[in-house]
Amino acid sequence: MAAALHLVPVPGLPMIKEGDDLGTLAVTAMDRVGLKLESGDLVCIAQKIVSKAEGRQVALDEVIPSAQAISLGAETDKDPRLVQLILDESTEVLRQRPGILIVRHRLGLVCANAGIDQSNIDHGGGEQALLLPADPDRSAAALRNRMAELTGVNVGVLITDSHNRPWRLGTVGVAIGAAGVEVLDDHRGGADLFGRELKVTLINRADAIAAAATLLMGETTERIPLVVAKGFAPQTCADTASEIVRPLDEDLFR
Amino acid sequence: MAAALHLVPVPGLPMIKEGDDLGTLAVTAMDRVGLKLESGDLVCIAQKIVSKAEGRQVALDEVIPSAQAISLGAETDKDPRLVQLILDESTEVLRQRPGILIVRHRLGLVCANAGIDQSNIDHGGGEQALLLPADPDRSAAALRNRMAELTGVNVGVLITDSHNRPWRLGTVGVAIGAAGVEVLDDHRGGADLFGRELKVTLINRADAIAAAATLLMGETTERIPLVVAKGFAPQTCADTASEIVRPLDEDLFR
Repeated sequence: MAAALHLVPVPGLPMIKEGDDLGTLAVTAMDRVGLKLESGDLVCIAQKIVSKAEGRQVALDEVIPSAQAISLGAETDKDPRLVQLILDESTEVLRQRPGILIVRHRLGLVCANAGIDQSNIDHGGGEQALLLPADPDRSAAALRNRMAELTGVNVGVLITDSHNRPWRLGTVGVAIGAAGVEVLDDHRGGADLFGRELKVTLINRADAIAAAATLLMGETTERIPLVVAKGFAPQTCADTASEIVRPLDEDLFR
Repeated sequence: MAAALHLVPVPGLPMIKEGDDLGTLAVTAMDRVGLKLESGDLVCIAQKIVSKAEGRQVALDEVIPSAQAISLGAETDKDPRLVQLILDESTEVLRQRPGILIVRHRLGLVCANAGIDQSNIDHGGGEQALLLPADPDRSAAALRNRMAELTGVNVGVLITDSHNRPWRLGTVGVAIGAAGVEVLDDHRGGADLFGRELKVTLINRADAIAAAATLLMGETTERIPLVVAKGFAPQTCADTASEIVRPLDEDLFR
């Protein structure tokens, strides 16, 4: 881990549509820019294109809002059909204010509007919304397997999303799906430089890498939803991003 | 921003003590490994060594806890002298549980134990604690100026710290001080790929870079509190990390 880390954006992916084989498209884009995958590499891919490939786009016209969604929509000045989707994707509404519902997503993530996005998707004849992948860890594992088939190389995969946070302005990337990556690095119980026990040193590797990769992915016109992180030692690891979710009984900010 | 990002850990800094000239030590360490600073580079430096150089280490023996600190210490099973330091550094206690006080630091940061650390410092004859720098933005600006004097190059500087977060396990690095870096990148009001207005796209660049740099810095035995991020275009920018603090009236999790 003392070696340098290189984060390489991979341009050239087409606009993604339902059913696309992201593994093939990603490897083709890498080939085109001469990027060769090596064992230890982490392929970071934006949630948005995973969701698109998995057909998670919903036409709001097809959503019938419940009384709760209509009421909550009026309170927060949001389209009640979108609110219905948010409620369907969540287990709990934690906070609300005009324009924003902060919920606990069924995946355990706490995020605004259940991670549902309406930007950078083709709204065609009517309003559309894009849900998070049904199971981002499974999506990451599938992508990892597909790339191993295509290249013979076992890489790690992170599915990234941009989150807002309490207390700090500005979005940062986090990992919502992971495969073949050490997600949490546990130093607890180890000793520090002076032999003192390290008490709370659990390091979130996946989110740290996702943060930098998401920054590189940029926004809108640049639109590079694929970044390869090079410099890590090869890992065999069964960690998932779902392990990042802090247990409810440790949640001080419910 | 479509170019690759390289994060290079710089080994070889000595153990830092009060009064050390971090700029000179950093540039010397870079020279030793043949790393040449270029305009646009961001020098990421761990809060811990900035605090040490600025003499922010306090002997607990010299702290006289108030009745409030004694009471809060008993409730949270913490040394009341440490609790006193935490209270002195904070404007508000947001949550408490055994071993942890989550406070709003006088800098506006919400963090555990006011960012006060007892690991990786020489406790010598008695318990010691290390406070955050008095003004990390000022520390970053001073370091930036010092490195410009020494090298003739205007780099950006980020002072990084590891934070725990609500809802997600594991620490990630954040920027608590910044100079010469675009901290928040505001895309709000811009258009997405399909011409739709981007509503909440304020990107926290400083935290994203700090997260990856902090991961590289590692813990304990590796101990590399200095990482140079290369690949960014040169910036002239008066942003500070204090701008990251979300205004109190937007705080939904007080």
